[in-house]
Amino acid sequence: MLQRLVLIALICCCWQVSASTLLVEKQKFTTTDFTTVSGVTLPEVNVGYESYGTLNANKDNVILITHYFSGTSHAAGKYAETDALAGYWDAIIGPGKAIDTNKFFVISSDTLVNANWHDPHVITTGPASINPKTGKRYGLDFPVVTIADFVEVQKRLLASLGIDKLYAVVGASMGSFQALEWAVRYPDKVARLIHVIGAGTMDAWTVAGLEKWALPIRLDPNWRDGNYYEGERPLAGLTATMLNITQDAMHPAIYNASFPDFKVLDKGALEDIRTLPAINQTLAARALARAKTQDANHILYLIRASQLFSAGMEENLATALSRIQAKVLMLPSSGDLLLRPEGARAMAKTLTASGKQVTQSEIQGIWGHLDGIFSITSKQAEIAAFLAE
Amino acid sequence: MLQRLVLIALICCCWQVSASTLLVEKQKFTTTDFTTVSGVTLPEVNVGYESYGTLNANKDNVILITHYFSGTSHAAGKYAETDALAGYWDAIIGPGKAIDTNKFFVISSDTLVNANWHDPHVITTGPASINPKTGKRYGLDFPVVTIADFVEVQKRLLASLGIDKLYAVVGASMGSFQALEWAVRYPDKVARLIHVIGAGTMDAWTVAGLEKWALPIRLDPNWRDGNYYEGERPLAGLTATMLNITQDAMHPAIYNASFPDFKVLDKGALEDIRTLPAINQTLAARALARAKTQDANHILYLIRASQLFSAGMEENLATALSRIQAKVLMLPSSGDLLLRPEGARAMAKTLTASGKQVTQSEIQGIWGHLDGIFSITSKQAEIAAFLAE
Repeated sequence: MLQRLVLIALICCCWQVSASTLLVEKQKFTTTDFTTVSGVTLPEVNVGYESYGTLNANKDNVILITHYFSGTSHAAGKYAETDALAGYWDAIIGPGKAIDTNKFFVISSDTLVNANWHDPHVITTGPASINPKTGKRYGLDFPVVTIADFVEVQKRLLASLGIDKLYAVVGASMGSFQALEWAVRYPDKVARLIHVIGAGTMDAWTVAGLEKWALPIRLDPNWRDGNYYEGERPLAGLTATMLNITQDAMHPAIYNASFPDFKVLDKGALEDIRTLPAINQTLAARALARAKTQDANHILYLIRASQLFSAGMEENLATALSRIQAKVLMLPSSGDLLLRPEGARAMAKTLTASGKQVTQSEIQGIWGHLDGIFSITSKQAEIAAFLAE
Repeated sequence: MLQRLVLIALICCCWQVSASTLLVEKQKFTTTDFTTVSGVTLPEVNVGYESYGTLNANKDNVILITHYFSGTSHAAGKYAETDALAGYWDAIIGPGKAIDTNKFFVISSDTLVNANWHDPHVITTGPASINPKTGKRYGLDFPVVTIADFVEVQKRLLASLGIDKLYAVVGASMGSFQALEWAVRYPDKVARLIHVIGAGTMDAWTVAGLEKWALPIRLDPNWRDGNYYEGERPLAGLTATMLNITQDAMHPAIYNASFPDFKVLDKGALEDIRTLPAINQTLAARALARAKTQDANHILYLIRASQLFSAGMEENLATALSRIQAKVLMLPSSGDLLLRPEGARAMAKTLTASGKQVTQSEIQGIWGHLDGIFSITSKQAEIAAFLAE
């Protein structure tokens, strides 16, 4: 049970699933005059990236990993031998692993408006960045960015390395949005797509649910319409947002199992309305620790990018999917309550109906949405086989 | 589809499911020196109640209806012929209906800390009430109250009418908590229990999830630690809370079906981070309209009462359930994402294992949790048969 409690504390963080000695280095990519889908030109964009394995001479062994909502480019390996944790998919990325770095050059970059602004290993451009034109932080004057913009930045990064085609693109959750966007937007450049705990487009339920994550930030008096960079950070609101995200990404079964000592008859909570139940105090402390590494405005922009996601920026998903040339492996989680497997099942049917080569294999785990991270090893053979074809 | 949209707008509100001519009158019950489970004595408690049908001479034809979280005592009928809507369970309460007011005297009361403080038909005592000792509103000095306290107030109300025993007690959601508490606390006074979309005790998942409803209120700068009665109400926070409650009570299928014109590519939301997607603007306007009839502190107290619920104020549910003498009919909703049917199924097994007479019959609807209200007619024959035995 102790192990489970530790797992909970690490939700959405990096997670060491195997003893890894892959040492990685965060690098910085800069591009200029980047025009967003929303029509605004950013004079400069910086994002961090890391890579595992070696780019071959033909530059045709490239696998791009696109990260989830609260994730970073740290998909595998460690920055130092002494790191407590390896990257979030270290279980499947590395020498001899499902995504074999002896064969493939694996690359992963931080998105625009990455959540983890205060993580020293993250490099991103967003509302917390200095606008070179004004010398001040953008705040809410930063343009809305979309999943397609994330892809365009990745495309420029790859071009800077002389890479024009992807052997595969692989992403979980919001990472699946980016991976799918690649396959729809650049069908002739993407040979394989692995779409994990994902979706093809947003429905009303999900757009409404994502807004629930934004509400606490906007209510925090310290948020001040996004102009908090000279004062107190809206940490109370951001903590509430983290509480929402964490619970939404889990399944009740593992959640309850991870609190084996939970008692409903809570004396403190009974005696004073101002005292939270003990479990809520514990959860709030964990969420605050997470919130401290993040930027509230960046979270709002990630929410908006997710709300506006529809593959290929097409209102009709079937139209977008019809463009795909990549072979597709879909790995939804059966117990997912956030991006429910019904969406992925429908998408697989649409792909099949339009003659695409698609395999769907559901992850049967205990974590709910997070099975895409914590139970990914259950699909390592299928991933390896898919990449070998 | 239009009808579905209208349904959405009425969620958790009263809902006219049949042409009812049952006219009802809100009455007021006052009791003094009421000591809460948390150990505080309230000098005076007032609650509203209404009744349908006639109390017989033996006073043994009484069915108590206990209301859900955001509900009121208005379970059936109309206050005036011109009312647009009848009470929330009007489909099953009335002359010749499943809960037949030609046979039964049906009574329903507003709980303590009822959410709908600004509804002119609601009478309740809570933090918005004047403390007779100080002449000021209680605010957060009001004691924490529990589901058991709600039951104790109901017991005093019934005693004031000379009623000592219940033919049946029937409640949905938080109403099921009260109904179950009756059967556990007063086993010899409750002959039948109908437990709809309910639970027997809170788990870690639900306690954490309920706190998500409280967070926006506490973040609203107008909330001011509950001392807002002389100033602006924390309507922004309360609106966010209503958005949370409404979505949590529904199933994605009906939610999405109710927005047939939903477009993910939202121009306004793409052009400015300050502009919400159209669907979120619509939802926020509806939630604000609901919030205006409610009191934020009362919602916080209802959340706490729910978080602390465990039948019989027992940590061990089996121990509590072993006391029940009532026959039990359990009606969970198969698609319930708020109080998931797994809880009710486990409770039914525990009851059966301890030799109790229990029937479980799941509501198969499209609404999720709200099937306990909107799809209750699908169980009218079973309810009538259960009450006839």
